[in-house]
Formats: sequence, C-alpha cells, structure tokens
Amino acid sequence: MGKVTMGPQYLIYPMPILLVGANVHDKPNFMAVAFCGIANAEPPMISVAIQHHRYTHGGIRQNLTFSVNVPSSDLIKEADYCGITSGSKVNKVEACQFKVFYGKLNNAPLIEQCPVNLECRVVHILDLGSHSLIIGRIEETYVSESCLTNGKPDVNKIKPLIYNRAPSRHYQAFGEVVAKAFSIGEELKPKE
Amino acid sequence: MGKVTMGPQYLIYPMPILLVGANVHDKPNFMAVAFCGIANAEPPMISVAIQHHRYTHGGIRQNLTFSVNVPSSDLIKEADYCGITSGSKVNKVEACQFKVFYGKLNNAPLIEQCPVNLECRVVHILDLGSHSLIIGRIEETYVSESCLTNGKPDVNKIKPLIYNRAPSRHYQAFGEVVAKAFSIGEELKPKE
Repeated sequence: MGKVTMGPQYLIYPMPILLVGANVHDKPNFMAVAFCGIANAEPPMISVAIQHHRYTHGGIRQNLTFSVNVPSSDLIKEADYCGITSGSKVNKVEACQFKVFYGKLNNAPLIEQCPVNLECRVVHILDLGSHSLIIGRIEETYVSESCLTNGKPDVNKIKPLIYNRAPSRHYQAFGEVVAKAFSIGEELKPKE
Repeated sequence: MGKVTMGPQYLIYPMPILLVGANVHDKPNFMAVAFCGIANAEPPMISVAIQHHRYTHGGIRQNLTFSVNVPSSDLIKEADYCGITSGSKVNKVEACQFKVFYGKLNNAPLIEQCPVNLECRVVHILDLGSHSLIIGRIEETYVSESCLTNGKPDVNKIKPLIYNRAPSRHYQAFGEVVAKAFSIGEELKPKE
C-alpha cells in the first residue's frame, strides 16, 4: 500500500503561527502559538492550546480574555522570540518593541504591528493532558488599513506564516494560489 | 492608529484544508474541513468543527471515531468536491475514485491517495452554536512512503494546502521558507 505508520502524531498538521496575548499581573505578555484552530462559525470562536505552566496561561485564566495577533513575515524574529522566552523572565513587549493597544474588552492586549488582531472572551477551558484547550469567542477583529484591498483583508499584504515541522521546524510563507475554493470541485459533478 | 474594526470574524485565520472521514450507515464518507486545530500534545489530539446537520457528523457521533486525511495539491479537485457535495446525495468515494483503507480502529476510513492520514477516537464533543467542536485523540498516523525524505515526512512532497478567505476563497500552496523556528528569535536576546 506504500504507507508507513508513525504512531500517534500531530507533527504533520500544518498550522499558522500566532501571537496569543494576555495581561499577566496587569502587564501585557505574548506567546507564540501554533496549536490553534477555528472552533465555531456562529458565533465566531477560535481555540488555542497552551501548556498549563506557561506564563500567559495564568493571565488568561485570571482575566478570562485573550488576544490573537497574526504576525506578518516582517515580524518573524519577534514571533519566534515570543516562543523561545518566558514572560516570567523577560519583558517581551520591550524586547520586541511592540506597540500595545486595547480594544473593547479593555484587558486583552493587542499588537499594533500585527496586521490582524482578535479580541476573545473565554467560553470553555478543557484540560486535555499536557495542554489546556482554551476556546474563545471573538468579540472584535482589527485589521491594519495598509493590509486591505478594496476594503477587504488581503493575504498578500498580511503575509501570515505557517509553522511547519516536516521535515524540520520552519516558518513558511503562503505560496501560489492553486485553485478557487467551492468551485474547482464542480468539475467532478456529473454533467447534466 | 491605522486599524479598522470588522466585527467578530474568523475570516483572516488561515487554516489547512483537510478531509475528515467517517463511516455513515456503514459506508465511508468524507467532507472538506478547514475549521480544524491542534488541541493537545501529550496525548496527541486534534479538533475539527462540523455543522450539526452534516452527513459526516452523524457518522462520527455514532462511531465515536473519525479520520483526518491531508490532501496534496494533486487532489484539490477531489477535496473541493467533498466540500460542495453531501454524502446524503452522492457517493463521494466513487466520484473521487478514492481508495479507502482501514487501520487499527477498523471503522475510521482512510484515503490511500492522501499522503497523511490520522485515525482518531472522539474524546470530547462541544456544541458551540453552529458547529460541534469534535476533539479526537490521534491513535495512529500513516504517511505515504513516497512523501518521506530520510524516513521523515517532507512537506515539499506532501504538498498540503491552505484555505484562505482573504480577500477571496482560494486554496494556496505552501511558499518559501522564511526562517528556522526556535532559532531566528535568538537574535533578539541580549548579548552576553
């Protein structure tokens, strides 16, 4: 059959790299997260999985709010830094020179330099083992004006990144458009 | 500040496109899912969000197992077809000429042509509104031998796709490597 088994693995599941923010002891902190997901459409909800001991985790549990910031490829150094350091030891906002702003929730810190920012209110926390799965209802979305085309967010300006572990751990850009969604599959429908 | 608000939106959250499989009335069926996520590391778990009325949803609820199949760009037509049709009306396996195999769970159908296949056992189902968030523990991972490099899965051979909604709904390939993860951020650490 040409298949090999590799045991239970999530290693080949490509995910975007995001910066999750929370106020911890009343100061903004951010961590890099690739364990994320879309959880619901109406109302819009997303999920992030965070290890229990992480500094940001404490802030989210305390405030029951968090932010999700999509770094562009220009911010990859900062995003990676937020993944290899802990807010318990360094001031990441200072080190990364992030400009922080707050939106309607007042206590979910947002990064101005990130082209897309989501403010979320926690609706569920599931302890699944090594990680807590935190499900947040998106309360507001902010997009940098410079990343809009005709008033709509444009991935070619946002330049989000994928975190890829196969075969080694890299950040990759989005590549060429392969096909139009909800369209190319029509070719497989029987002709009438 | 150069930001515009867009209301609560998940539209700018780039996600991989996957084929979620389940046996429904004892026959294999697959649907395209971009609402997915990594939920836990130890033990490995993933999440998929599926509308309650979907045909596949019934099969997952009944068996409490499902599969996740990563289509390569060669299979984009089939993947899209599985997103715009319902198993209640058409036999998708036949239309797409999928070769289906089963692994250790016996009732989670896997697609041989997809380079990566995960078998999952349901551990949680959360009804969040429009969608059920289904959390599955990965029981086994299968990778096509042709997509390995030195025994490790290689994204350049797997060729997974991102589903992107901004500005319009397209499938995009992975692009160039931008940086090494857990590494480039070192540059921001103070010199010792």
